[in-house]
Amino acid sequence: MYGDAVLSVTRKLAEFVANSEDAALPEWTIHEAKRTLLNLFAISLSASRSDDAGILIDWARREGCAARASVVGSDFKTSPGTAALVNGYLCHLQDYDDTHFPTVLHPTAPVWPAVLAAAEETGASGFATLAAFVLGAEAACRVAISVHPWHYDAGWHITGTAGVFGAAAGAGRILGLEPTALVAALGAAGTRASGVREVFGSHGKPLHAGQAAASGMQAASWAQAGFTASDDIIGGRRGFWAVLSPAGHSEDALLGRLGEHWELRMNGLKPYANGVVSHPLQDAVIELRNAHELKPDQIASIQARVHPLVPELMGRAEPRVGLEGKFSFRHCAAAALVDGAGHDAQFSDAKVKDPVIAAVRAKVSATVDPSVNEDEVYVTITLNDGSSHEIHIEHATGSPENPMSDVVLRAKYDALAREVFPADRADALWHAVWTLDEAPSLSEVVKLMQLPRK
Amino acid sequence: MYGDAVLSVTRKLAEFVANSEDAALPEWTIHEAKRTLLNLFAISLSASRSDDAGILIDWARREGCAARASVVGSDFKTSPGTAALVNGYLCHLQDYDDTHFPTVLHPTAPVWPAVLAAAEETGASGFATLAAFVLGAEAACRVAISVHPWHYDAGWHITGTAGVFGAAAGAGRILGLEPTALVAALGAAGTRASGVREVFGSHGKPLHAGQAAASGMQAASWAQAGFTASDDIIGGRRGFWAVLSPAGHSEDALLGRLGEHWELRMNGLKPYANGVVSHPLQDAVIELRNAHELKPDQIASIQARVHPLVPELMGRAEPRVGLEGKFSFRHCAAAALVDGAGHDAQFSDAKVKDPVIAAVRAKVSATVDPSVNEDEVYVTITLNDGSSHEIHIEHATGSPENPMSDVVLRAKYDALAREVFPADRADALWHAVWTLDEAPSLSEVVKLMQLPRK
Repeated sequence: MYGDAVLSVTRKLAEFVANSEDAALPEWTIHEAKRTLLNLFAISLSASRSDDAGILIDWARREGCAARASVVGSDFKTSPGTAALVNGYLCHLQDYDDTHFPTVLHPTAPVWPAVLAAAEETGASGFATLAAFVLGAEAACRVAISVHPWHYDAGWHITGTAGVFGAAAGAGRILGLEPTALVAALGAAGTRASGVREVFGSHGKPLHAGQAAASGMQAASWAQAGFTASDDIIGGRRGFWAVLSPAGHSEDALLGRLGEHWELRMNGLKPYANGVVSHPLQDAVIELRNAHELKPDQIASIQARVHPLVPELMGRAEPRVGLEGKFSFRHCAAAALVDGAGHDAQFSDAKVKDPVIAAVRAKVSATVDPSVNEDEVYVTITLNDGSSHEIHIEHATGSPENPMSDVVLRAKYDALAREVFPADRADALWHAVWTLDEAPSLSEVVKLMQLPRK
Repeated sequence: MYGDAVLSVTRKLAEFVANSEDAALPEWTIHEAKRTLLNLFAISLSASRSDDAGILIDWARREGCAARASVVGSDFKTSPGTAALVNGYLCHLQDYDDTHFPTVLHPTAPVWPAVLAAAEETGASGFATLAAFVLGAEAACRVAISVHPWHYDAGWHITGTAGVFGAAAGAGRILGLEPTALVAALGAAGTRASGVREVFGSHGKPLHAGQAAASGMQAASWAQAGFTASDDIIGGRRGFWAVLSPAGHSEDALLGRLGEHWELRMNGLKPYANGVVSHPLQDAVIELRNAHELKPDQIASIQARVHPLVPELMGRAEPRVGLEGKFSFRHCAAAALVDGAGHDAQFSDAKVKDPVIAAVRAKVSATVDPSVNEDEVYVTITLNDGSSHEIHIEHATGSPENPMSDVVLRAKYDALAREVFPADRADALWHAVWTLDEAPSLSEVVKLMQLPRK
């Protein structure tokens, strides 16, 4: 018998992941796993139609691997690692996935694709698959928060680096790895942790999520076959903490109250496909628009009192192409008023050049108020007839204090899934995920998430 | 027209790789490329028979990819990235590959497998393939020396991290990427740079070489298809230098006298499958053994005067298993006397337990002398009849001042290739590589490097 003190921190995390009972997980975590999966399908299906997506989808098709795991929004299967790579990339391509607020980790994009690939191949039950995501996502969030803020501040893209641990944990859970093998899987995955913020604004950023998913999936497979790695990739002398976060780390953040406290609780779904700091403003405009049936030609001005980061991060005055629109709070507000939404479709080149949106955009202004919180805003919309409407958003939709409701998630899902599906097909996939905890396998979900790309 | 100052350091490196003329490369670099490739085949063929190799070989076979690039020592083809991953792993598995002495980067294991895979698929000429290795290896060595010693000292395995740039450069050269696309390939590869020293002593270490090869190969393919990444992955604000070597870097080491000064000149082949600090001792024992036809039962003592690192790194007195033999200078010397060699075969469990070798091992001793250089040794072998032989090795075989001769390389190659091949097949592969600069493609080499594994 040996004492607790001799177990490495990696071993303790692995024991939590390997030894937790599916049935003992809090019910809300399974519900949240379904919501993140529906969100993944919505944004990945939408993203799958773009040329940006085609680069990796066409590459994966040329890889010509054995048909074992499905690519979302395409009609081919490939190897588990390759499917995980493409699906992770698709999930993060529109910057429209979920966010663990304390760390800005995006847990779904690296973890779900690894879990999906492992579960499809092994025929895992729906409930076991949802549980594996919960445990994998918790592992990713715990590794992330154990090195926050030092690691991100040093220039690492935490979704790629911490994400790989969650992918290995989730896939390893599906493969039934015992703690010793799971430690090896975490070691093989963790030594592949990569992704620097230098490539933000390019295809490199979503690649980080995909490679984390693939690295974790492959590491779990290798560990199952006897691959060896460090006993303590996280805490070892030349491990993740020491090398990728030399400025600091917290063992308590990694391991404290595992199974009681859930970092997954701090994970939020995004209602808009742009930087989170403009979300309160978009909430405000859409709420006033819908309440008063506002039309673009009624608008005299949209005035906002905002957190200082809004003009700093989103201050582009006159966007010329779609991507620049994502960095313009004026465009976000104008598109919210005209379209009542902020999906990727509101950030096309055409939308940025649309004269109706441009006219409203010119009427948006903001004043900075340091007493306004990051998820807060005050907005006044004045109409041409001199009347005005005011609103105060205390916590933006999707923030931990105001989680996106299932109703709003359904609206987001419908808007995006129906870009590629007829309504009944979108309904069927929604329903299949919503009842996944009762399904004997993923086969129905997998069948519904695939379709010819062009 | 724009001035030199606006080009990023990554762009300058990419222009060197993309714009160099094959025919203008110094003749010795092409010769060295052949030698490193022969060395790769020798050690990879030998390594391919082990269970350690089987973990990744069997995995790659199950991937079931389209047959586009060959795995060394097996009889199947797979995708270029998957072949690069397995071949890089095999090449580094015995720790018997080459070493860039200033940085301890092992350039062949990440670079050659990427170049081989790209060249096999595209049908590149033998000369173009050798030239692509030269340029890719130089890129890897330049990136490595630009962050040395800070980066390795921080815990990074430089073969994985710097290696990925060389793999992308070499594969990108074969794919004919223009500088702009090559900058993107270096960006996509560089943001995947990974590998920490924590996993040394496990399968994780050779994995680093394989994943660097695969990441570079894939990055080049993606860039060819329009993938975007940073304009300056090496020197950018959140790039390789800033994030993976914050303690220091040298732009001059990266770019100074490119095309005139070659870091490849400082790359040496290993004559023995163990740590480099024992190599002078093994040279000395083998030279005396061969000159005087020494037999184990004649030996009274083997006394060495050595650099302080020898007992520090290789001081294990009584090794019990093969791997421990690699960390015992006494075993290295004893096996050198009995077998006249130091291949991986001399570090099996059986060799460590062999009573003849064990008897000699007990007669080996060393005294430390700080005035002895790391590649130097003084050895006296005393015989039971009271006579003795002395030798002074100034520079060990394989060090930059005493490169391994083609004759010694041939002996190493023969010893290892004949573990898996009949002699005539080994001869044929040797000849095919030796005349590769005249071959229209790699087809002959590729055919000869494959055989059923079991």
